[in-house]
Amino acid sequence: MEGAANGSVDDRKIYFRSIYSQLKSELLENSAFDFTDDAREWIDKMLDYNVPGGKLNRGISVVDSYEFLKEGNALKDDEVFLACALGWCIEWLQAYFLVLDDIMDGSHTRRGQPCWFRDPKVGLIAVNDGILLRNHIPQILRKHFKGKPYYVDLLDLFNEVEFQTASGQMLDLITTFEGEKDLSKYKLPVYRRIVQYKTAYYSFYLPVACSLLMAGKKLEDFTSVRDILVEMGAYFQAQDDYLDCFGDPEVIGKIGTDIEDFKCSWLVVQAMERVNENQKKILHENYGREDAESVMKVKAVYNDLNLKDVYSEYESTSYEQLISQIEAEPSEAVQEVLKSFLAKIYKRQK
Amino acid sequence: MEGAANGSVDDRKIYFRSIYSQLKSELLENSAFDFTDDAREWIDKMLDYNVPGGKLNRGISVVDSYEFLKEGNALKDDEVFLACALGWCIEWLQAYFLVLDDIMDGSHTRRGQPCWFRDPKVGLIAVNDGILLRNHIPQILRKHFKGKPYYVDLLDLFNEVEFQTASGQMLDLITTFEGEKDLSKYKLPVYRRIVQYKTAYYSFYLPVACSLLMAGKKLEDFTSVRDILVEMGAYFQAQDDYLDCFGDPEVIGKIGTDIEDFKCSWLVVQAMERVNENQKKILHENYGREDAESVMKVKAVYNDLNLKDVYSEYESTSYEQLISQIEAEPSEAVQEVLKSFLAKIYKRQK
Repeated sequence: MEGAANGSVDDRKIYFRSIYSQLKSELLENSAFDFTDDAREWIDKMLDYNVPGGKLNRGISVVDSYEFLKEGNALKDDEVFLACALGWCIEWLQAYFLVLDDIMDGSHTRRGQPCWFRDPKVGLIAVNDGILLRNHIPQILRKHFKGKPYYVDLLDLFNEVEFQTASGQMLDLITTFEGEKDLSKYKLPVYRRIVQYKTAYYSFYLPVACSLLMAGKKLEDFTSVRDILVEMGAYFQAQDDYLDCFGDPEVIGKIGTDIEDFKCSWLVVQAMERVNENQKKILHENYGREDAESVMKVKAVYNDLNLKDVYSEYESTSYEQLISQIEAEPSEAVQEVLKSFLAKIYKRQK
Repeated sequence: MEGAANGSVDDRKIYFRSIYSQLKSELLENSAFDFTDDAREWIDKMLDYNVPGGKLNRGISVVDSYEFLKEGNALKDDEVFLACALGWCIEWLQAYFLVLDDIMDGSHTRRGQPCWFRDPKVGLIAVNDGILLRNHIPQILRKHFKGKPYYVDLLDLFNEVEFQTASGQMLDLITTFEGEKDLSKYKLPVYRRIVQYKTAYYSFYLPVACSLLMAGKKLEDFTSVRDILVEMGAYFQAQDDYLDCFGDPEVIGKIGTDIEDFKCSWLVVQAMERVNENQKKILHENYGREDAESVMKVKAVYNDLNLKDVYSEYESTSYEQLISQIEAEPSEAVQEVLKSFLAKIYKRQK
């Protein structure tokens, strides 16, 4: 078992996946609630549908980061298990956000299947399912981390990051509401703030912060690491926005609808900085419309503005800046953690 | 200030209310998020609309209970403040549940005003507002309780109770889904389980548990207190269900729709235990329908079955049982806490 847990990338993914089943079983036997058979069946199905179907990068990176922080000392079985459990807490958090975001956005597909709330048996019960996903996290933490010296720090960390994510989501929602009346509200600082709070903290900072706590570190000693990870998260979201428009739907597992949904996307923000009067008029008239012709007109403006090149340039610059920030970090182990993160996302196609 | 905090029931309510403004200001200045003016304005309005408009019984009872537990020693200013802050955390929790429940139930009014999500500017953004309300609780706890010896117990308590409430809500939702196909699924043990988890833990156990922690107690030494409070919560919910049908809408602040909504209500459960074949047929045909005539037919069955008398009888029996359980408690202070709770709800009209 130790072999599998410490082996190749694929072995690690297999081991990580196997922990999911254990955590699910524990939740379904949780004595804090007196389950009926129907309730147990519902949760079982809801978890399988929403939790394990993603790329699992966030979760697995807790284990990877923790290994770097132990500087070459092979992880013990129980250490690998605990890092996986924390990794799954992040996957649960992600599932919770996605289930609720899809309801708010009126989305249709997610990870190559219909959104959970689109199942006619589910509908708005999905709101409560989202809440349950969120509530499973402290149950997992309590079962496996209560008594550890960093238990209270873990609770504070998850609370802080969830608060930041929900605040970022609020900013996104009210910005879109204002943007629908006036596209020129979509500016880079607005975009940047949404991305930082809505995506970067939970996707990039949280996995590393979890591994730092497990390694006995104090998070307040690692604010520069947090800042680098937030920067990486901003870069990651720009990629996401780019792929939503220019990526291959077969590869990314969904058909992008940022244009139709009037999203404050990296692309429209870049476009608005570069448009002439005529192009601005086209964007104002067509951004946020459902019909294919409007979407095509928006994409034509993006092409006229060479946004693919703007993006390539942004990718290189971001990469170089991140590398130089990372190399300024005093700890080599921390540098390894950050570089491994960056390697996972640089020039990604999905 | 101490005078106001320790004075009459009305003075206490005024003092309790004043703490709301302070907590709100702190949340709007929270450094964990970089607020825009729009964001601050949104949260301000959202909080005012959803948090302070209820009866505040849950919140104030933290202060009342804590006072009993201090056995006659006047509370110091900072102790009153902290008890109020915890009380407000419960009010925030309640607001979070109500905002989301109203969306899931498709409700129209709450506390005498349209449900938050019914505001056309809000809509499904209300899902995220519910999440934000929930996220404010650990922010309040962290600001005012971090460093207290019972801080981690508070976090665990709120997590546990929220999990139980969301689990109860799930049970309610899937039971209603099954019940719509077959009314005979609405049985007393099913009803009882929903009520215990969905209402009793957060409305009755949580306030007392908060005051016990503040008083330096360990919650595992008070399981019989928890059981009594859960019992009281079950009684409270039966009252709620009764008032939904037979209460005065002017007094309770909403027009009951349990019959229209196919709710697993105390009344329909009691009716199903007593119906003859003809009455059963009427219920099957009319329960869960929107039109006034169907609702009237259901109410006629309730009247034919003398459910008002059944309810009176239930009220008396519950009261007597609760009193005798309370008097078996070894601590007089704890007895006072429980009796004061019971006095607040016995024979209530709203």
